[in-house]
Amino acid sequence: MADNLQRLGLDVGGTNLRLGVFEGLQLLEETRFQASYSEICKQYPAEEAWQTILQVTSESIHNMLDRYPAIHAIGIGFPGFIDPETGILAQSPNLPGLLNVNLGADLSRVLGRLVRVENDANTAAYGEFCQLGQPAGGVLYLGLGTGVGGGLVVDGKVWRGVHGYALEAGHLIVEPGGRLCGCGNRGCVEQYASATAISRSYSEASGQRLSAYDIAQLASQGDEHARKAFALAGDKLAQALATILNIVDVEHVVLGGGVMAAWHWMQAAFEQRLQRDLIPVLRGRILTHISATADHAGMLGAALLAR
Amino acid sequence: MADNLQRLGLDVGGTNLRLGVFEGLQLLEETRFQASYSEICKQYPAEEAWQTILQVTSESIHNMLDRYPAIHAIGIGFPGFIDPETGILAQSPNLPGLLNVNLGADLSRVLGRLVRVENDANTAAYGEFCQLGQPAGGVLYLGLGTGVGGGLVVDGKVWRGVHGYALEAGHLIVEPGGRLCGCGNRGCVEQYASATAISRSYSEASGQRLSAYDIAQLASQGDEHARKAFALAGDKLAQALATILNIVDVEHVVLGGGVMAAWHWMQAAFEQRLQRDLIPVLRGRILTHISATADHAGMLGAALLAR
Repeated sequence: MADNLQRLGLDVGGTNLRLGVFEGLQLLEETRFQASYSEICKQYPAEEAWQTILQVTSESIHNMLDRYPAIHAIGIGFPGFIDPETGILAQSPNLPGLLNVNLGADLSRVLGRLVRVENDANTAAYGEFCQLGQPAGGVLYLGLGTGVGGGLVVDGKVWRGVHGYALEAGHLIVEPGGRLCGCGNRGCVEQYASATAISRSYSEASGQRLSAYDIAQLASQGDEHARKAFALAGDKLAQALATILNIVDVEHVVLGGGVMAAWHWMQAAFEQRLQRDLIPVLRGRILTHISATADHAGMLGAALLAR
Repeated sequence: MADNLQRLGLDVGGTNLRLGVFEGLQLLEETRFQASYSEICKQYPAEEAWQTILQVTSESIHNMLDRYPAIHAIGIGFPGFIDPETGILAQSPNLPGLLNVNLGADLSRVLGRLVRVENDANTAAYGEFCQLGQPAGGVLYLGLGTGVGGGLVVDGKVWRGVHGYALEAGHLIVEPGGRLCGCGNRGCVEQYASATAISRSYSEASGQRLSAYDIAQLASQGDEHARKAFALAGDKLAQALATILNIVDVEHVVLGGGVMAAWHWMQAAFEQRLQRDLIPVLRGRILTHISATADHAGMLGAALLAR
């Protein structure tokens, strides 16, 4: 970590792809482009969608490698249940149809270079941990984008669990029997606190289908349905967070992802619920950080975990 | 751990106290007696209750030390939020009035010997981990007695969290706005799956206040209210367990504590709920062990953690 080697980190989201070239912790160059993997998965049969994703991803990597030939390691953060040992993506709730594909091996084959694959929330957690100066008390990261992901770093290491599925925070059930989730369960926090979920909450109340971004604008203009959709997201996020903290007890929490741009409309409900649901001895002892929306943690973590 | 030193381990429950002398993993002698710390805390002012508890506990230790002079370390598992570094008991939801008492220092002073204090579910988790042959995949322990406790061993170590409050499993909220808990919150799993809770569930349905033990007998005789009380306990226990596994992802789960004697009446509801609530990729991949009611894990773990 203290080295100054060049590394490439990719951060795959439900709607866009980001690539960053780092020298140690320093970002040399970033590229971001629209790549709606979710839409690709919905429109094409699984095999075709997968080939398309591989192609888009590997082309973007090739471009960077051409310009930075000194890059010595490549890491990618990808949404879904990934075994980092084998690189196999078992399931990706927001990329339907992708089941048991060997992301690591396929991408390495197409590129002719080793690519280290990791769950996207784990890479973000590791990036935040490094940016916070590697605090001894551990870092829990929750990312709110198309879905909700979670990652945990303790003792300087990403905690993956024995099957590689630790911290699947988006699939904590916060509303038993509630909204159906892409994972097959009902009432997962992802169905209340993600961008997709905020869109759904607003649509259920107003009949209008808008993006989370547009709903945030309406909240600023005083739209009650918009404000309630974000308040619900804040409330359910805090409910899941309190549960996680009661189990893992870390010091630093970082909230990130695109939805955090509208944090203002979530904060009151979030804080009220967090204080209520935390075990009393933990109240007031958690440091919550809001990650900037232009944050590089996901790319940085992917890059630094690729060794 | 491979040594054959003699150690004394104490396991403090809400209604009884157990002491075991071990040589390595082998139990040389066990003593168990009624010591209703919960009742003492309800009947006496805090300071008096604390002095009584100290006296009862230290007398029992003295008796064992007289007979096993070779004992070289003493460990105690105690219910509540304990900081193992300082030995301070911050709060014990089932021993009301005990707030910020220095269990470790007070007990060491009265005995004139160092006593290592640990949360009782942590000691049980560590004991189970050793009895299972120290599996690499980690061990999660949930104990159902007067309350519900949890402990986690990963990489061979008890995971305490940064504040010492990790795995406060009994205080996971499984029923938002539900039954009031001793910790101050509502809807904690402890209020549905502990012996106390089963008694309450039965009383709410039948109007009769009976012990969990008696209710188990009634369940065997076909009493529907009794069976429902245990089924609710199994359901809520599985709900909390699925949440924990979705976060920590370990391989082995051990369910212990006195309530497990009635596991038969909880099992169907437990398994149905666990399969439903686990993230799909984890289904069928968890090894659940039921600890015998005469289990020594709590004492063994307390003994082995005392070094």
